[in-house]
Amino acid sequence: MTHTDSTASQATAPAPSAEEALATSTSEASLARSIARSREIEADMPANPGRYRMLTGVRPTGNMHLGHYFGTMRTWAPIQDMGIDTWILVADYQVITDRDGVGPIRERVLSLVCDSLAVGVDPQRSTIFAHSAVPAANQLVLPFLSLVTESELHRNPTVKAELEATDGRAMSGLLLTYPVHQAADILFCQANLVPVGKDQLPHLEQARLIAQRFDKRYGRADKKRPVFRRPEALLGQAPLLLGLDGEKMSKSRGNTIELRMSADETAKLLKKAKTDSDRVITYDPASRPEVANLLTLASLCGAGEPEQIAERIGDGGAGALKTLTIEAVNEYFAPIRARRAELAADEAYLLSVLRAGNERATQVATATLDAVRAAMHMDY
Amino acid sequence: MTHTDSTASQATAPAPSAEEALATSTSEASLARSIARSREIEADMPANPGRYRMLTGVRPTGNMHLGHYFGTMRTWAPIQDMGIDTWILVADYQVITDRDGVGPIRERVLSLVCDSLAVGVDPQRSTIFAHSAVPAANQLVLPFLSLVTESELHRNPTVKAELEATDGRAMSGLLLTYPVHQAADILFCQANLVPVGKDQLPHLEQARLIAQRFDKRYGRADKKRPVFRRPEALLGQAPLLLGLDGEKMSKSRGNTIELRMSADETAKLLKKAKTDSDRVITYDPASRPEVANLLTLASLCGAGEPEQIAERIGDGGAGALKTLTIEAVNEYFAPIRARRAELAADEAYLLSVLRAGNERATQVATATLDAVRAAMHMDY
Repeated sequence: MTHTDSTASQATAPAPSAEEALATSTSEASLARSIARSREIEADMPANPGRYRMLTGVRPTGNMHLGHYFGTMRTWAPIQDMGIDTWILVADYQVITDRDGVGPIRERVLSLVCDSLAVGVDPQRSTIFAHSAVPAANQLVLPFLSLVTESELHRNPTVKAELEATDGRAMSGLLLTYPVHQAADILFCQANLVPVGKDQLPHLEQARLIAQRFDKRYGRADKKRPVFRRPEALLGQAPLLLGLDGEKMSKSRGNTIELRMSADETAKLLKKAKTDSDRVITYDPASRPEVANLLTLASLCGAGEPEQIAERIGDGGAGALKTLTIEAVNEYFAPIRARRAELAADEAYLLSVLRAGNERATQVATATLDAVRAAMHMDY
Repeated sequence: MTHTDSTASQATAPAPSAEEALATSTSEASLARSIARSREIEADMPANPGRYRMLTGVRPTGNMHLGHYFGTMRTWAPIQDMGIDTWILVADYQVITDRDGVGPIRERVLSLVCDSLAVGVDPQRSTIFAHSAVPAANQLVLPFLSLVTESELHRNPTVKAELEATDGRAMSGLLLTYPVHQAADILFCQANLVPVGKDQLPHLEQARLIAQRFDKRYGRADKKRPVFRRPEALLGQAPLLLGLDGEKMSKSRGNTIELRMSADETAKLLKKAKTDSDRVITYDPASRPEVANLLTLASLCGAGEPEQIAERIGDGGAGALKTLTIEAVNEYFAPIRARRAELAADEAYLLSVLRAGNERATQVATATLDAVRAAMHMDY
């Protein structure tokens, strides 16, 4: 296993122990520390791209939409193009943490590969792979489970939140152990850069804690460095986009515009978007969230600042706002969608991209597992 | 994946559902059903060896002793010699379910390989493999975890008992999920015959339940049969051997005679065995457990029925009993120990046996995982 060390630049504050960090990962002070560290890394990335491997994961529970795009996907190609080794995990096993079936999983996985390529991920430089295709990575779940206690699993805020969201459904073993398999996903490939929202910081702390405990309890393959590299958060600065009904954007709520939709479908959906009856358009997210949301979307698609767009529309009402937004969205996504349509027609190519990624992930996972075996004296 | 169906002979009573079977697996009625079924299978084994694949697992937490031998190991070669495909799992990852370190794991694993060969396991016909060496088997833990609830994991009697035995130690994630990784161990290799004690019946029921739920929830690769074969219990009829101090025999208590010990070491330990002060030797397990234990041991080593041995010794006292037992044990184990000493001197050979087993296990696990992927529509 060869990897460069994580960035050696100074942290903003003395780093707490991994146990402390996990316990306090949702506190204000900890969040401030994470944000500061993330900004530091962002500044370093273009200068030292060789220091980083970025891993981002997506659960293929539906088609990718504009919320995903502006939330994370639009950063993938720029990060890759900086020269940073970019890994995209299609987290297929995570689909079954909180539901009984896999759904149309094959279509969704290939659709995600397609979306990734359409937004500029280059399979020659980046790795797109599926969770279920890398046994050597998944095996890490077993030794990692020995490093966490049941009560730690229970305290994980995402596990708690997901359980609440499942409406009285019994907690599955897979949901309970979610922080552990997410740690395996991150640590197996020696990623040291993980784009997350602040609600996912505890997962990253859990992964760091597991890496640290592994080092302490089982030791090293190479005395000079731990088996696992320390992953750090890249905290997104994405604006919050609402769904077309003004509620939280969600694949399952059907209030989204998908990347793969046509210009006509996009227009039809945006025309039905919820607004209000005030004909004078103003940018006021607090009291006019739906109108502000369309202004934000048009702005993200290059129509200028939300306030300026509002001024331009003046008393044109929701109709004019929608017309402008439809144009902006369709213009922005036209090249992505054109690329996507070409790619989608070639399933064999999409499969070849995924398989090459699976192979590369397996190579790296095998090297990591070899180091794990050596550290645990299980190399026979 | 090719495998023959499980034996189609009639069960003694109508089979309960897997859920019911797990809930009642420790009841008297269920135990009686399991014993009857086991006897039926035992009768069928010599006639139809091709119907079976036997899997037995050992946790390499110490060296194998006479309790292991008479409890299970002495059946391995006869089962193999019947023509039954015999698999011996060195459960190295299970060492860390309830302790912080792996101990001298490499020595113990190789010692277990050595013991297996010494008691007659033939690596040309049987498969000896290590848990940590088969990623495709370990990956099954993830989909299997989706098939059990947290409260089912908690209700498992072995998990409960092991937790109590660890004396207030926090429950690790690996101990909590023990029934799931044990199910993966059994199901990956399509074993349909698992030698167990009655306290392990719930594990087998859990494995059956997981196999059944997988079939129901995720379906099949081949419509004609489930992905996983149904494992059945081979309930041992082994006599209970106590440790030399009259307590439960246990590697960690140091009250055992190990297979690898010399005749002199065996004599020294047996001379110090706890007995009582009554010079007249009688076989009375209830009121004279230590004396009865030596009689049982001598009997198992071919010195006749315990009552007859006691009569032969008469008022010769504990000294005569020990002399007779030492002779019987050392004579019985002399050929096994001679073979063992030869094998132990050739670590390269032991490693080659284990590696060949790991490879065979990986082949079978990969075929099973391919079927799992096809059933789950994750074959990309």
